[in-house]
Amino acid sequence: MKKMEQLYEGKAKKVYATDDPNLVIVDYKDDATAFNGLKKGTIQDKGIINNRVTNHLMKMLETKGIPTHFVEEISDRETIVKKVTIVPIEVIVRNIAAGSLSKRLGIPEGTKLAKTVLEYSYKDDALGDPMINDYHVFAMELATPEELSLIADYSFKINDLLTDYLKDLNIELIDFKLEYGKTADGTIVLADEISPDTCRFWDTVTHEKLDKDRFRRDMGNVEDAYQEIMKRLLGE
Amino acid sequence: MKKMEQLYEGKAKKVYATDDPNLVIVDYKDDATAFNGLKKGTIQDKGIINNRVTNHLMKMLETKGIPTHFVEEISDRETIVKKVTIVPIEVIVRNIAAGSLSKRLGIPEGTKLAKTVLEYSYKDDALGDPMINDYHVFAMELATPEELSLIADYSFKINDLLTDYLKDLNIELIDFKLEYGKTADGTIVLADEISPDTCRFWDTVTHEKLDKDRFRRDMGNVEDAYQEIMKRLLGE
Ligand SMILES: Nc1ncnc2c1ncn2[C@@H]1O[C@H](COP(=O)(O)OP(=O)(O)OP(=O)(O)O)[C@@H](O)[C@H]1O
Ligand SMILES: Nc1ncnc2c1ncn2[C@@H]1O[C@H](COP(=O)(O)OP(=O)(O)OP(=O)(O)O)[C@@H](O)[C@H]1O
Ligand SMILES: [Mg+2]
Ligand SMILES: [Mg+2]
Repeated sequence: MKKMEQLYEGKAKKVYATDDPNLVIVDYKDDATAFNGLKKGTIQDKGIINNRVTNHLMKMLETKGIPTHFVEEISDRETIVKKVTIVPIEVIVRNIAAGSLSKRLGIPEGTKLAKTVLEYSYKDDALGDPMINDYHVFAMELATPEELSLIADYSFKINDLLTDYLKDLNIELIDFKLEYGKTADGTIVLADEISPDTCRFWDTVTHEKLDKDRFRRDMGNVEDAYQEIMKRLLGE
Repeated sequence: MKKMEQLYEGKAKKVYATDDPNLVIVDYKDDATAFNGLKKGTIQDKGIINNRVTNHLMKMLETKGIPTHFVEEISDRETIVKKVTIVPIEVIVRNIAAGSLSKRLGIPEGTKLAKTVLEYSYKDDALGDPMINDYHVFAMELATPEELSLIADYSFKINDLLTDYLKDLNIELIDFKLEYGKTADGTIVLADEISPDTCRFWDTVTHEKLDKDRFRRDMGNVEDAYQEIMKRLLGE
């Protein structure tokens, strides 16, 4: 496996081509951004933690029947994944009200939702990733009804699997963001990352925030929170 | 039928109690507002036009199997309607991109949508009527799945009926907003109004705007546009 030219540099990761056209290498950075790039900073070793946490969780999900892009971890910050065309929809799954949901709908942060909420946003930085619904997805032809139905089913199943898995580690899964992609043969797989950057994790007992909200809200102990998540998940 | 105390004064209508607990009188004003009340003005005779246009269209929809709150027009501006508990969801139906959809999703105004779009917003002035999806409706318990499914079915049917009806009058139905309510016995009926305040109407040939966008965007000839709609619909 040869690491070749950089294909894309995002806010949190770089993506490199390899000598296999169906595989790419993702390289996790310590750069942190929030509020659509308005707030910028660094979280030491975040790249290492997010790489390892993502791979750990994706491997767990694979054993439970969720197809993912994960192939092989090749260094602290680098992982070989299946090259996909990202479906331009961010899927947000919410168990407890927090963040933008609380603000938009006036539901106090921490309120258990009567039903799990799924939200979609249109992945478009220039438009600020606006929220969309199923009808927008079809009108804009971002996914077919079959693809979107599969994405929704996977997302609810991932929510159940992650919630159960994390509960045993004293972590409450408040909400999280997923991205899916299509491989060369058209299969929909879970892509991108599952990490303290993309999930809200609260300590089950103390309700302490163990995620990127510590950075967004200048709460301090950002590095400690990321380290704590890695420790609980990977035992180190 | 006795007109009794005012129950509510909205931005466009007043609602009065009657001596029948299941009926109220709506009284249409000439007041016009836009951008969640930020822009204020008056459109002469709008109250008369919206009252008559709404009743005309609701009567047409009733004959095609849509249950509505309409009971009887009692004056130029006043109509007896079934008293309902308004379902706190605004239903927006879109055939052609315009207004907030164009802005939010970057789709140029006038673009035919590949599929009809249904949007919901949570009726809450203080929150600015934020967009929500089915999952938010259930999490906030704004309607049951059965109620929401009926509301969606009615809205698509109303779109088909109105689009056909208006086409013969050289009016293109771009998008519109509906409100539903529950009568004392729990029946879901179409409520509120269907008028140039709540619909985007474009002349089929010239694409001239014949609706509240003329007021929102300071385009002039606002009164003429409302009069033109009444003339095409009611022949006067
Ligand atoms: N398996 C994959 N194949 C191809 N691209 C992927 C894969 N997994 C994730 N990506 C994409 O890699 C890019 C880099 O990730 P990063 O999180 O840094 O991006 P970002 O700053 O969030 O920007 P974007 O808005 O494009 O997601 C993202 O666009 C992401 O969707
Ligand atoms: N059949 C009905 N029974 C009871 N209330 C109704 C009925 N039809 C409409 N209404 C309500 O009458 C109110 C007055 O209408 P108007 O359009 O002026 O309100 P508005 O300024 O848009 O405010 P709101 O945000 O409350 O809708 C609205 O709240 C509307 O939902
Ligand atoms: Mg990202
Ligand atoms: Mg109104």
